[in-house]
Amino acid sequence: MTSETNLTPTPADKFTFGLWTVGWQGRDPFGDATRAPLDPVESVNRLAELGAYGVTFHDDDLIPFGSSDAERDAHIKRFRQALDATGMKVPMATTNLFTHPVFKDGGFTSNVREVRRFALRKVIRNIDLAVELGAETYVAWGGREGAESGGAKDVRVALDRMKEAFDILGQYVTEQGYQLRFAVEPKPNEPRGDILLPTVGHALAFINSLERPEMVGVNPEVGHEQMAGLNFPHGIAQALWHGKLFHIDLNGQTGIKYDQDLRFGAGDLRSAFWLVDLLERGGYQGPRHFDFKPPRTEDMSGVWASAAGGMRNYLILKERAAAFRANPVVQEALRASGLDELAQTTLGAGESLADLIADRSAYEDFDADAVAERGMAFEALDQLAMDHLLGVR
Amino acid sequence: MTSETNLTPTPADKFTFGLWTVGWQGRDPFGDATRAPLDPVESVNRLAELGAYGVTFHDDDLIPFGSSDAERDAHIKRFRQALDATGMKVPMATTNLFTHPVFKDGGFTSNVREVRRFALRKVIRNIDLAVELGAETYVAWGGREGAESGGAKDVRVALDRMKEAFDILGQYVTEQGYQLRFAVEPKPNEPRGDILLPTVGHALAFINSLERPEMVGVNPEVGHEQMAGLNFPHGIAQALWHGKLFHIDLNGQTGIKYDQDLRFGAGDLRSAFWLVDLLERGGYQGPRHFDFKPPRTEDMSGVWASAAGGMRNYLILKERAAAFRANPVVQEALRASGLDELAQTTLGAGESLADLIADRSAYEDFDADAVAERGMAFEALDQLAMDHLLGVR
Amino acid sequence: MTSETNLTPTPADKFTFGLWTVGWQGRDPFGDATRAPLDPVESVNRLAELGAYGVTFHDDDLIPFGSSDAERDAHIKRFRQALDATGMKVPMATTNLFTHPVFKDGGFTSNVREVRRFALRKVIRNIDLAVELGAETYVAWGGREGAESGGAKDVRVALDRMKEAFDILGQYVTEQGYQLRFAVEPKPNEPRGDILLPTVGHALAFINSLERPEMVGVNPEVGHEQMAGLNFPHGIAQALWHGKLFHIDLNGQTGIKYDQDLRFGAGDLRSAFWLVDLLERGGYQGPRHFDFKPPRTEDMSGVWASAAGGMRNYLILKERAAAFRANPVVQEALRASGLDELAQTTLGAGESLADLIADRSAYEDFDADAVAERGMAFEALDQLAMDHLLGVR
Amino acid sequence: MTSETNLTPTPADKFTFGLWTVGWQGRDPFGDATRAPLDPVESVNRLAELGAYGVTFHDDDLIPFGSSDAERDAHIKRFRQALDATGMKVPMATTNLFTHPVFKDGGFTSNVREVRRFALRKVIRNIDLAVELGAETYVAWGGREGAESGGAKDVRVALDRMKEAFDILGQYVTEQGYQLRFAVEPKPNEPRGDILLPTVGHALAFINSLERPEMVGVNPEVGHEQMAGLNFPHGIAQALWHGKLFHIDLNGQTGIKYDQDLRFGAGDLRSAFWLVDLLERGGYQGPRHFDFKPPRTEDMSGVWASAAGGMRNYLILKERAAAFRANPVVQEALRASGLDELAQTTLGAGESLADLIADRSAYEDFDADAVAERGMAFEALDQLAMDHLLGVR
Repeated sequence: MTSETNLTPTPADKFTFGLWTVGWQGRDPFGDATRAPLDPVESVNRLAELGAYGVTFHDDDLIPFGSSDAERDAHIKRFRQALDATGMKVPMATTNLFTHPVFKDGGFTSNVREVRRFALRKVIRNIDLAVELGAETYVAWGGREGAESGGAKDVRVALDRMKEAFDILGQYVTEQGYQLRFAVEPKPNEPRGDILLPTVGHALAFINSLERPEMVGVNPEVGHEQMAGLNFPHGIAQALWHGKLFHIDLNGQTGIKYDQDLRFGAGDLRSAFWLVDLLERGGYQGPRHFDFKPPRTEDMSGVWASAAGGMRNYLILKERAAAFRANPVVQEALRASGLDELAQTTLGAGESLADLIADRSAYEDFDADAVAERGMAFEALDQLAMDHLLGVR
Repeated sequence: MTSETNLTPTPADKFTFGLWTVGWQGRDPFGDATRAPLDPVESVNRLAELGAYGVTFHDDDLIPFGSSDAERDAHIKRFRQALDATGMKVPMATTNLFTHPVFKDGGFTSNVREVRRFALRKVIRNIDLAVELGAETYVAWGGREGAESGGAKDVRVALDRMKEAFDILGQYVTEQGYQLRFAVEPKPNEPRGDILLPTVGHALAFINSLERPEMVGVNPEVGHEQMAGLNFPHGIAQALWHGKLFHIDLNGQTGIKYDQDLRFGAGDLRSAFWLVDLLERGGYQGPRHFDFKPPRTEDMSGVWASAAGGMRNYLILKERAAAFRANPVVQEALRASGLDELAQTTLGAGESLADLIADRSAYEDFDADAVAERGMAFEALDQLAMDHLLGVR
Repeated sequence: MTSETNLTPTPADKFTFGLWTVGWQGRDPFGDATRAPLDPVESVNRLAELGAYGVTFHDDDLIPFGSSDAERDAHIKRFRQALDATGMKVPMATTNLFTHPVFKDGGFTSNVREVRRFALRKVIRNIDLAVELGAETYVAWGGREGAESGGAKDVRVALDRMKEAFDILGQYVTEQGYQLRFAVEPKPNEPRGDILLPTVGHALAFINSLERPEMVGVNPEVGHEQMAGLNFPHGIAQALWHGKLFHIDLNGQTGIKYDQDLRFGAGDLRSAFWLVDLLERGGYQGPRHFDFKPPRTEDMSGVWASAAGGMRNYLILKERAAAFRANPVVQEALRASGLDELAQTTLGAGESLADLIADRSAYEDFDADAVAERGMAFEALDQLAMDHLLGVR
Repeated sequence: MTSETNLTPTPADKFTFGLWTVGWQGRDPFGDATRAPLDPVESVNRLAELGAYGVTFHDDDLIPFGSSDAERDAHIKRFRQALDATGMKVPMATTNLFTHPVFKDGGFTSNVREVRRFALRKVIRNIDLAVELGAETYVAWGGREGAESGGAKDVRVALDRMKEAFDILGQYVTEQGYQLRFAVEPKPNEPRGDILLPTVGHALAFINSLERPEMVGVNPEVGHEQMAGLNFPHGIAQALWHGKLFHIDLNGQTGIKYDQDLRFGAGDLRSAFWLVDLLERGGYQGPRHFDFKPPRTEDMSGVWASAAGGMRNYLILKERAAAFRANPVVQEALRASGLDELAQTTLGAGESLADLIADRSAYEDFDADAVAERGMAFEALDQLAMDHLLGVR
């Protein structure tokens, strides 16, 4: 039976929140802010009370764009004090290269060279702060790197600039001796008509071209992949397979539409179940980071309810997925569906390619019609998963 | 002025067609075949008359599944004769690992090990034929490699099997001394709920993990990427950037829905314009391969009209894109939009990272508001492209 | 606690299945059948054992296209015997106007007039049988009424033909004195590029133009609306609001892609919860009809597992939705979210338009900023729903 | 040959623009404004110079929310003077029920009753101004009428409130003796997770339930229907068929994603061709209204380029569509595709239902296989359309 104790988050769960999530004021393309600005210190305190492990930030979340050095120091000092008082961590930070109009055509790949230079400097400055605050991961979401029309961006040239930027940043971190890794966050569109590195796959491919690929992984976001209609757990599995899941953004999305940033669990619940199953079994050790936007219909009590709900949903799904995997009936069903056979190599132990070619049972004597008779029993297996998800088993 | 001469295909245009395209009988999920089987020899002859360069095939297109060796030889002989008589080439071949029920859970990643072994042997056998017929590219579309439910496939394990398959095939081709490269064809879904390697990006990332990555590239298909809402020319640009555009499948799709396989030009025409512009400027030397399905409303005369239409549209767009690039007004507009600036490195010649950090104009003295004033002039540029596409300029 | 008894279907649950669902052989656009034909009698027997209330059919499901009258009678006789033996009902029937190639451009709106006439006659013939077997609803899915290209169909003219067809059929049923109502089943696309009457809304609007609108309602299908990214419970609510929910097709779909026809519950589980909540509270009395396709990976035992799973999921969700509505905490949360206020008319009892205009508190003295402060508490409410769905409350 | 004269807009073309289009400052979900506010007078003047026929407005576009009566009068006076000076018309107006936070849960269907009352009064006040300025159409876009979660809105009750609102407004207009019709503007989502009346179809169905359905039609927007993957010309054809196309919003969208509001012609160009063909042939006499957002990459010169481009594209497509219809080759192709046959009634002149049933050629003697042989020749027809669109014929 599910006990409320199991559903109460603790820092050991490593739940983290962006300051910009609970701090989102509700400004959308058609409406003004519905909530007042939220003091980052308040966010730290309230999230700590809710059982979170830490917070993350864009430079401009903490230090308004254009602050003087003195203002900056004051903001950082207050923030640090709140962290110290609560024990909250800052495992990740990132840069805002999208709000100010100067980034309207991008940061690292803006057609305007001086914007690219400014973007690099802005990142470098915040990397220093990130490291100072203990961050191990630096996320790079290139939301403005893209185009609305075909002639506006030569994509190959833009990828040259993107690579140049990551190589420079990799050099900086290396030279400073920082223990910091980068995580590229893909998104297919919005706010640009099409964004470069639109999916986990494109980002993984890009990373391989860098001077220091080992320093760079991905930070997939549930809703971003789902905006391309892709199966999120499949993308995460591929990222894990490449050893590149450096961070993750948890939220909800109801299909292919604008970026909704619903709380985790809202949206595609079955996919969320398989995601938690994968993360918990898959060796991912990093924070469970929520990147969501409490709907603008909510006042602050709704904001905290939304934040708490995401953690709660994660914990419920974690319990359910564990029970699913532990159930001997499920284990038998997995065998019936051939999951054990998939884990066997296709060539036998010690079998050579020549052996395979010489094996008449593999081709000449293979009875395709007979083998095709075997049912895969996936529906029974999936219903078992449903039963566990819904807690009727 | 566009002359009809320019719009008449010749082998120099390198247009190729899958036998399965003009030969599609019109069977769909809700309806029976509307056209009789088409003799591959007839396809070769008619496509040659229309100005094509060559044809491509799945093993089962040419040699029905289950044929005896003698039947197989007879099919190949007749096909060869048609090729010889017409001068048509076979620059690409591929394997059908999806029609027979034995592949219902996939080929290389079926949960059933003996199916995986059979799949490998089926590919190997057809590679021999492909090479014999002069093919330089071997396409691998893993349309059945996927799942409809979350427990049915352990994706990381499936990727192990996928890698094993490509490594074995790479070994085979290497050992035989064949001049053959593989091209992975991504697709997000259909016929499986979710297919592994769903986009160009995922395939490019996967390839990097292989034993012989240099032998493997991608074969992107217009409609497949558009089924994920992705910008096709952007994906092609990234593939070119990685040096991995080994082949391409041209067709049309009207947005995110089932796989339509319309003739090239139908669907997103503006995207097709930018695609042709990119292919013609981007150094792609391979065939312009049509992978489409003449709608099942058509009889054979409609099939040939559809085949001719795809080539015609390519040639129209090629002419229009060339005129666009050659127009001095366009060249000026590209400069106004900063495309030349994008081509400049972000660091200056000889500039070090330390120099960038020391450059106060890049950050401390950077006037973001002032720089943000600059309009990118993308709308004017895009309207110039529209004018050229529509032939009013 | 959920008891297995509550999750065991009985005829009182009014679960029905199309013969074409469990009988689907698994032929898809890329693959041949994976299952043998299923005798309708076997379907009736097995579904009865599983607790179903009845079956439904297309004419061609029961009587293969082109059967002689004698063959037809024999098929019907055996079917009737099975119904009688099991007590299974046939509350709905429909016509296959899509499989035979003659319907390649549609039935009621084919550009070929004699096809339209044949289609009407085919429907009329099966209406007689439907009534004979006790059906009260006759579904019309116009899956082939549409086009792939813009010139191929003059949509206004096609709607004239569609209206003509329904008016003729309404006349027929009326003249025969049948107690039969029609239910139009919308779908946005597949197998046509675009289908006429693509959504519940378009069908509802069309019905208003008929000679006998009272005889015609809608038969929405979960996956069809979701293929357009629409909220299925919202569409059902609007159909109920218009008094037009004559029948419903339950299945599952994982977003905007090809028509998946997964079992009910698979796909968007949260949407399924709200759907069941609505159907059970909303006065819908008709059958809960499953229109799904057991994946072609399955053998017959998987088919029956899939059929059973859909019923089980409905029953689980029914129990959860009832508990949600019964919970006083939920009722309070609904009030906090203003659902009671929404149920009040905007004008007060006896208030006139002139009164509203004279009410200064409604405009001149309205303090928009102050009213805007009120949080809607939707996140807390939605988390309560999630808790109930997942059975942790 | 296309002459530039034909592509120069004049008031006779009836091109109109929302003040909020050229006046959009470029604020998006991830970025601040990139352009300064634009004086409505400047908009009127510049659009007049570009050849527009008129402008349209939301109340708050002209008179900032919260203005005093004196301020309001001053704004209106300046606006009127600009209209008079330029001869520009105001054929349509609408109400902003979405920007102020008070509308966060909707206007007509907000769960907060006093918000609904305020919304009605706000509309009524602007209707007076609209009529005063000569408007004949009053658009109602209910962008905030919707929900992000299933419990937050009882859709049937919300539709009651929506109907109540339109009935009250219809009463008001009738009582005032205004010559004004309403046009409902559907949209599937954004800014709400799901919006009520999500498509043209849903709006048409809803209108039939009103007390004064004759006063209410639709105002479809290109991108809104395309956000649901629907064929826009098909939706317009159905609206015309119902006599309900009271107004139209022209813009561009590249598929299912966030609301892009690209200039007309950008996005799906082939669909735009068929749309213009339909509007010009279909008896639509109203304004060609542009509802777009010049991308935030643009400065003001880009804004005007974008505005001019939309009109230019319309005129190019108008010329191309007219040539297509006038071409005897096309007319022959339309016959070959059976468009003339579709225009014949399915029953013959004077033929009764009984006659149809008695006609053995329609069923008993119908040779389905033989009739199925006929090719529909849609590909040839569509290529002719492509040739005309691209100007090669």
